[in-house]
Amino acid sequence: MAVIAVIMAGGSGKRFWPLSRENRAKQSLALFSEKTLLAETIERIMPLTRDILIVSSIKQREHILADARRYDGVRTLFEPVGRNTAPCIALALRAIERHWGGGHQVVVLPADHHIARPDDFRTAIRTALATLDTVDGIGTIGIRPDHPETGYGYINTGDILRPGVFAVKRFEEKPDRARAETFVKSGNYLWNGGIFLFRQATMARELAALTPDIFAGVGAIPDLDAITAAQYGAVRSISIDYAVMEKTAAPVFSVAGDFGWNDIGSWAGYYDLLPKDAAGNAVRGPVHFVESTGNLVVNLTDRPIFLLRKNGQLVIVTGDAMLTADLADHQEVRRVTEYLEKSGLAALL
Amino acid sequence: MAVIAVIMAGGSGKRFWPLSRENRAKQSLALFSEKTLLAETIERIMPLTRDILIVSSIKQREHILADARRYDGVRTLFEPVGRNTAPCIALALRAIERHWGGGHQVVVLPADHHIARPDDFRTAIRTALATLDTVDGIGTIGIRPDHPETGYGYINTGDILRPGVFAVKRFEEKPDRARAETFVKSGNYLWNGGIFLFRQATMARELAALTPDIFAGVGAIPDLDAITAAQYGAVRSISIDYAVMEKTAAPVFSVAGDFGWNDIGSWAGYYDLLPKDAAGNAVRGPVHFVESTGNLVVNLTDRPIFLLRKNGQLVIVTGDAMLTADLADHQEVRRVTEYLEKSGLAALL
Repeated sequence: MAVIAVIMAGGSGKRFWPLSRENRAKQSLALFSEKTLLAETIERIMPLTRDILIVSSIKQREHILADARRYDGVRTLFEPVGRNTAPCIALALRAIERHWGGGHQVVVLPADHHIARPDDFRTAIRTALATLDTVDGIGTIGIRPDHPETGYGYINTGDILRPGVFAVKRFEEKPDRARAETFVKSGNYLWNGGIFLFRQATMARELAALTPDIFAGVGAIPDLDAITAAQYGAVRSISIDYAVMEKTAAPVFSVAGDFGWNDIGSWAGYYDLLPKDAAGNAVRGPVHFVESTGNLVVNLTDRPIFLLRKNGQLVIVTGDAMLTADLADHQEVRRVTEYLEKSGLAALL
Repeated sequence: MAVIAVIMAGGSGKRFWPLSRENRAKQSLALFSEKTLLAETIERIMPLTRDILIVSSIKQREHILADARRYDGVRTLFEPVGRNTAPCIALALRAIERHWGGGHQVVVLPADHHIARPDDFRTAIRTALATLDTVDGIGTIGIRPDHPETGYGYINTGDILRPGVFAVKRFEEKPDRARAETFVKSGNYLWNGGIFLFRQATMARELAALTPDIFAGVGAIPDLDAITAAQYGAVRSISIDYAVMEKTAAPVFSVAGDFGWNDIGSWAGYYDLLPKDAAGNAVRGPVHFVESTGNLVVNLTDRPIFLLRKNGQLVIVTGDAMLTADLADHQEVRRVTEYLEKSGLAALL
């Protein structure tokens, strides 16, 4: 029995526009080092397994392959259209069966998160995998919340099954502020980090039982190397959380992790993670601040940018576009991509 | 007797940085059309005279000559260092004497102002020149103020000498807000637009009498085509306003002009003059506004700029630098050029 890592590398590339694009989503950006987030994700899981499958969008094929080809044994699978995580996992199960056969444990990981302490991350994964040896169910990695974030889903934990492992009572959608505060105060909630662990057979059984249409639809695709948009687009789009995690009768457990997790959900999340100067400015590329504080400036060109008396500003300059906004408007960047769609500027998406 | 136009094309190029530079000051920018402000100034005066002398800085020689060479009969003179307007006019008098001989009328004009109605401008100049036929003094063109601007000097007018021509009682430095309001309400004040008219002999006499050191210093320069920094730098730096206009015993008069004058003193002045879209955005180059109002964006590159929810923003992008600031901080752009000087980035000045 082996462990197969499935790295879900989808993403529309909208929240980090103009750095991210439709063909180069967040996981293909080198945000913190010379390596992309996807490469960092691959290297983070490699001490646990070299059997890795990346599932991404056909649009992003070029950038995904650029990373995947640098690592022996890393396989790829490309979706012609996005159908959310339940069909994606069903598809991954077929690909695993074909290449690695049956009887394995699977860990599903997002490709574009930041994890400050990889050792602690792997310890949590190992704990979850060990739990799967005795529990025929689905494991998650929950993140100990340190503030009442309203942008994440929460996991309501119940009985302690073994040290650091909790039975899951239910999954909670993104809460409002008051509920989030209650969750964090109670000590019985973890953030849902989008990491799932299961035996192949368990997830196949659950998908077949809870979403027979998806299981059958994905099962009917004749060639995984040439999936058509018509074939995959006919499959119902739904997340694994909705489709399985919230409905399954199988035991669901969560390992409480504390490994410096951040999903880098927006430019503000990126700003939080970057080192800053004494005035709170975070920078990549040639930038100069004159009486300016708390700015995030990413400049991929060699042309210097000067900020005069600007505070809390977001400035992103790439080879073919430039965005400026208040950093506080980090959730509104999609308004620009919506504008691009409406204005005949889709080439910049 | 001819009319000689002296176009003073100095300027440090700091207020319109990064568009303007030490070697390309405001008058060499094409802010409103395909033509530079200097070219517009030359063409504005040409219906009155083709005898034109441009005085500028040696640093700006290349850009000044690019314009001057396009017009027959336009001569140039370059200062190795800036010594303000009194030495500049003394130098111009020598150059005029050398090339055109004596007995002429001279009109001194800034090179970098915007004038909406050139016909009305020339009418005012003609009125002043006609006045010089009978008055052995110095004329100015005053601008009827339409708001209590604190950034300009004012001319206190007295008796009416002829229709539209007033005796000047005194020159007032840039006033505070309260004084500016009093000035405008009184109806007896004009803005000082930096335009002076005189006979050659009159100004030579006044300079010799009021600033004999300057007159002698400029007179001692051996070769006007090869003025050294040591020769000209030794001359006292002082404005013609201080040196002559405020002290002369000769009659000083002012023609009250109303020709859509604007000295474009800063990015805000430029914004005021540009056409704007319905949301009050003024633009040159490829720029897109998403929920953004009242911005000035100049983009000399072909890379589009996107503003998301920004109001009153200044964004200037050139081939080698980019500036962003609040438009309200238009008077503070020199802080950036000061920063460049301090930070070893003088190449960008």
